[in-house]
Amino acid sequence: MSAMKKVMAGVDIGGTNTAFGLVDSEGNVYEKNSILTKNYPDVNEFVAALSGAIKELAGTGTGYELAGIGIGAPNARYYRGTIELAPNLPWKGVVPLAEMIGRQTGVPVTITNDANAAAVGEMVFGAAREMKNFIVLTLGTGLGSGIVIDCGLVYGHTAFAGELGHTTIVHGGRECGCGKKGCLETYASASGIVRTVLYLLSEMNADSPLRNMAPSAITSKIIAEAAAGGDPVAVKAMSHTVEALGMGIINAIVFSSPEAVFLFGGLAKAGDMLFNPVREYVDENIMPVFRGTVSILPSGISEDNAATLGAAALAWNDFER
Amino acid sequence: MSAMKKVMAGVDIGGTNTAFGLVDSEGNVYEKNSILTKNYPDVNEFVAALSGAIKELAGTGTGYELAGIGIGAPNARYYRGTIELAPNLPWKGVVPLAEMIGRQTGVPVTITNDANAAAVGEMVFGAAREMKNFIVLTLGTGLGSGIVIDCGLVYGHTAFAGELGHTTIVHGGRECGCGKKGCLETYASASGIVRTVLYLLSEMNADSPLRNMAPSAITSKIIAEAAAGGDPVAVKAMSHTVEALGMGIINAIVFSSPEAVFLFGGLAKAGDMLFNPVREYVDENIMPVFRGTVSILPSGISEDNAATLGAAALAWNDFER
Repeated sequence: MSAMKKVMAGVDIGGTNTAFGLVDSEGNVYEKNSILTKNYPDVNEFVAALSGAIKELAGTGTGYELAGIGIGAPNARYYRGTIELAPNLPWKGVVPLAEMIGRQTGVPVTITNDANAAAVGEMVFGAAREMKNFIVLTLGTGLGSGIVIDCGLVYGHTAFAGELGHTTIVHGGRECGCGKKGCLETYASASGIVRTVLYLLSEMNADSPLRNMAPSAITSKIIAEAAAGGDPVAVKAMSHTVEALGMGIINAIVFSSPEAVFLFGGLAKAGDMLFNPVREYVDENIMPVFRGTVSILPSGISEDNAATLGAAALAWNDFER
Repeated sequence: MSAMKKVMAGVDIGGTNTAFGLVDSEGNVYEKNSILTKNYPDVNEFVAALSGAIKELAGTGTGYELAGIGIGAPNARYYRGTIELAPNLPWKGVVPLAEMIGRQTGVPVTITNDANAAAVGEMVFGAAREMKNFIVLTLGTGLGSGIVIDCGLVYGHTAFAGELGHTTIVHGGRECGCGKKGCLETYASASGIVRTVLYLLSEMNADSPLRNMAPSAITSKIIAEAAAGGDPVAVKAMSHTVEALGMGIINAIVFSSPEAVFLFGGLAKAGDMLFNPVREYVDENIMPVFRGTVSILPSGISEDNAATLGAAALAWNDFER
């Protein structure tokens, strides 16, 4: 009798880098590795390289038993196992990635987008393990979301459910990358807060170190630091961002009445400076019946392993639940 | 062997009137009747009267076999079987209505709010019978909603999920009955369109028959008729309402990606004059990935039986699915 360790591979596909690792049923991560996505303009070569690397990590003699592969990727369509029309990946059109990797590795493969993977990670390995209803918001360049209702991730009719970054919060507002206007993510995200700073620099007379930087060099981290240091423009930008994010969170709560909303990603690193005013805003502005029913929390998963864990959690959830 | 017809009782509790009837598994309604809610300030007497009336309709010798009772009522809390703090009903505090009626009738009783009952009605007997994911919006004095995801009604952590009428669409906007500001239902409902007319009468110089009516006498029906007749104030009010409703629908679609959104109730009677521009607005303003994935439809249930059917559908769904 061998004492093989059963694992799922978690794969996080990004425009530049594809990171992966093996994850056991307890959420321990082993054998982290990566390949450069952009080195594989031909998806067949990408599939061969990734499948080969995973088989090497978990193949015969390694002590691991590979039970499946979970993938988080932009523009992934869960129901079909495809990546579709992804502007930030090298491959055009509709790519049946789950099937292609399954054929090369001989194990079942499941795929979803990054924010959904983050939500499944929170459910399987994170702070939502005891929760039936919760929402994860990923505050990166954009605003992604994964919604869990009655213990299941919400995919909807199209598999594209959970695009809370594209709820309209200002009629005719800021231009969004999706082609529409006034979307939540143009206000409440790392790029949104930079836009808010630029707007406030146009509105306010106050001195600010942010006036000495090229707009393209301003980041949410710089703004959070400036706000912590008392810069009036940055402070006001934080408060506008809290308002927009709070409004988005309220609209999500009245929809699905979650037990918790988790904030994850770059902007969430601002910590209490973000979380406390967001909690106050939601408490003051939500329909009273929901007041006090929802916790607004940081993710329970450490950021360095989050994407791999989330992707592997999807496989654990789909194949071994 | 008797040929008893198995039925559920559907009960629609309103502030003035409580209507009920027997509904078979095909959605046929029998023995409609009602009692006056407001005649029973003591809830025990209400329970006795309602239970007695139902037993009379479906008791021994009637040819009906009563298998359960479904109730639609304002402020109903599904998980607990209660009506809680209902401002428009005669009974104060938390009323364990399901348990009380169950004890008097000897059959299982289930209860939810009106809009949720409408959604279950649509699912069991209406136009959503083949759908896994859809949303019903009831456009009455307020805007109610019932959300179905993966064939189940969404109740969330509190049982109060699906309050789309209380999503914020205008930061700091119109005062809402819920105590907050800018809620969708203050713009997109029968009362919302009247408020929009009053605002437009303040903004516009155009002549309008609506200038000759007391604000309290203006109804959504009068506005729809005036718009059909070309009155410029009413026409603009319709278009503002379409915009608000469209924005609310878009925000719901990006959340749960339904196959259809059903519009029901007073305002929906405006027909094509409402549906066509709402469809256009949604199509033009939604994140492109959802374009063409959702039908915006009238309810498949005729209005005179809708509340009874919806309530009975809840019982069929909960007890005989």
